[in-house]
Amino acid sequence: MPRPLILVSNDDGITAPGIRCLVEIVRQMGAEVVVVAPDSPQSGMGHAITIGHALRLTKNPVFGPDVEAYECSGTPADCVKIAKHYVLKDRTPDLVVSGINHGSNASVNVLYSGTMSAAIEAAIEGLPAVGFSLCEYGPQADFSHVAEWVTQVCRHALEDGVPAGTALNVNIPKNSAVPIAGLRLARQARAKWQEEFDRRLDPYQRPYYWLIGSFVNLDPGTDTDEWALAHNYVSVVPCQFDLTAAHGLAQLSTRWQLPLDEPAVETPLQPVPSGDYGPATQS
Amino acid sequence: MPRPLILVSNDDGITAPGIRCLVEIVRQMGAEVVVVAPDSPQSGMGHAITIGHALRLTKNPVFGPDVEAYECSGTPADCVKIAKHYVLKDRTPDLVVSGINHGSNASVNVLYSGTMSAAIEAAIEGLPAVGFSLCEYGPQADFSHVAEWVTQVCRHALEDGVPAGTALNVNIPKNSAVPIAGLRLARQARAKWQEEFDRRLDPYQRPYYWLIGSFVNLDPGTDTDEWALAHNYVSVVPCQFDLTAAHGLAQLSTRWQLPLDEPAVETPLQPVPSGDYGPATQS
Repeated sequence: MPRPLILVSNDDGITAPGIRCLVEIVRQMGAEVVVVAPDSPQSGMGHAITIGHALRLTKNPVFGPDVEAYECSGTPADCVKIAKHYVLKDRTPDLVVSGINHGSNASVNVLYSGTMSAAIEAAIEGLPAVGFSLCEYGPQADFSHVAEWVTQVCRHALEDGVPAGTALNVNIPKNSAVPIAGLRLARQARAKWQEEFDRRLDPYQRPYYWLIGSFVNLDPGTDTDEWALAHNYVSVVPCQFDLTAAHGLAQLSTRWQLPLDEPAVETPLQPVPSGDYGPATQS
Repeated sequence: MPRPLILVSNDDGITAPGIRCLVEIVRQMGAEVVVVAPDSPQSGMGHAITIGHALRLTKNPVFGPDVEAYECSGTPADCVKIAKHYVLKDRTPDLVVSGINHGSNASVNVLYSGTMSAAIEAAIEGLPAVGFSLCEYGPQADFSHVAEWVTQVCRHALEDGVPAGTALNVNIPKNSAVPIAGLRLARQARAKWQEEFDRRLDPYQRPYYWLIGSFVNLDPGTDTDEWALAHNYVSVVPCQFDLTAAHGLAQLSTRWQLPLDEPAVETPLQPVPSGDYGPATQS
C-alpha cells in the first residue's frame, strides 16, 4: 500500500495525552496524518452535532510541522464532518481513528462516547474507522503499553478492512504487571450505570445536582467486551449505526398485530430520490 | 389497567409546542403525567450527558396544576436520568414518551436525535419508551392531526408492551390533504446527509463555518421508515442500544483471523460483579 492517509480525532480535546499518543503511533506506521480535534474536552457528548451556531476551525501545529492539525470548536462528530467535507475535501482518508480516550468506552458507554461518535460519523461517510479507549481515566493515564495493540488494529484495518456499516470500538486494559493477552472479538456487554444525584445548595441556597453512579455489568457472557477486558484482552466490538432491532420488529408484528414486510434483501447502496428536509431538521 | 404513570421529556425544551401537544394527549388518555424536560432547546444533542458540571432542576407549572413538571438544565438523556433516580425515585413509570419533535428523526437522524436519546436512555433503564417526531420543522409546525396516532401507539405500548432492549422511533408525516394511511413497522433507512460548510468572515475577518446539507436516501427498500413516511404512513422502528454488528463479528473473524466465541445463548439479565470504573469514565 502507498503511504496511507489517516485522519485523527478524539473527544478529550487536541491537547490530551491520548491523542498525542495516537498521532505518534500512526506517524511511526509511516502514515500521512491529518488531525481535526475539539478545542476543548467533549467527554460524554455522545453523537451530538452543532446546529444552533457556527463552528470555528483553527490550524494548530501542536504535533509539529509534519502533521496538518486543526482545532475545532464543535463536537467530535462535527470534527469528522468538517474534516471530510472542508479540510480534506477530495482527499479520502484510508482510515479514521479516534482517541485514545482516557477511560473505558466498553459496553453501554459506547452510547455516551464522543470518541466513538467520531468513529461512527466516519463510518456513516463510508470510511473505515476505529475508536480507541484506554481503561484508565485522568490526565495521568499510562499509555506506555498501547502502541503494539493500536498498531496491530490499524494494520488490520488498513490491510484487511473494517466491516461495512460499522466502526470498531477498541478498548485496551490499563497497564499492569499482567501482560495483554491479545485482541479479542466481543459483543457489547449488557450493562448500565446505577445512578444517583448528589443534591447540594449553592451560596444562594439554590439546589444543584451532580450525577454520580457506579457501573453494573448485567451480563454473564464470556463473549462480551467487559469479559475480555477483565481477562486482560484488548476488546474489539464492531458497532453498527443501523439501530433497527430485528427481534423488535418480529415482536411488534405479533403483539401489536401490525403487518411486517419480508426482510429486505441486501441491495447495493444507491442514491434514491427523497424529500430534502434541509439541514434544519437534523434534530 | 389502573391509571398509568407516564413520564414525558423532549429535546426542543419544555416550552415547545410539541411537548405541550404530547402532554395533552397522554392527559386525555387519563394518565398521571410527570414532565422533566430541558430548559432550553437541545436539538442535535444525540446521546450527550452532562459530566463536567452540575445540573439545575426547577419545578415549572407550565402545564397547569395537574401536571408535575420540571425544567432541567441538562440534555434529554440527563432529564430521563434525573427523572428516574431523583424525581420519581420509587415510582416506576408505565411508559416514557419523548417529543413530539419538530422535525423528522427517521433514518440516520435517530443518531443525532435528542428526542430519541431520551427514549433510549429510558430503555436502558428497562422502561418501555417511545420517541415521537413530526416531519415538519419549526415553531409553527401543525400538530392538529397527530393525536389519533400518538394515542394508538401509547395504548399499544401500555397494553401490548415494547420489545425488551429497544425504544420505538415513531415518525408522523406532516399534515396534508392526504389522510394518514396507518401505522407501519419499518427498519431504519440507509441514508446520510450530504454536507457542506458555508465559510464566512466575522467583522474581525476571522472565519467561521455553518454546517449545511441535504438529506440523501440511499435505500431503495419498501420496508424502511423513509418509504413509510413518503407513502403517508406513521413509521414505527424498534431501535436497540446494543450496537454490536453480528455480520461485523463474522467478517472480522474471517478477515482478521481472530477466534470468535459461539454466540451467547440468551440468558436473563442479572448483576455480575464488575470493576467500578466510577462515574468519571462515562466519556
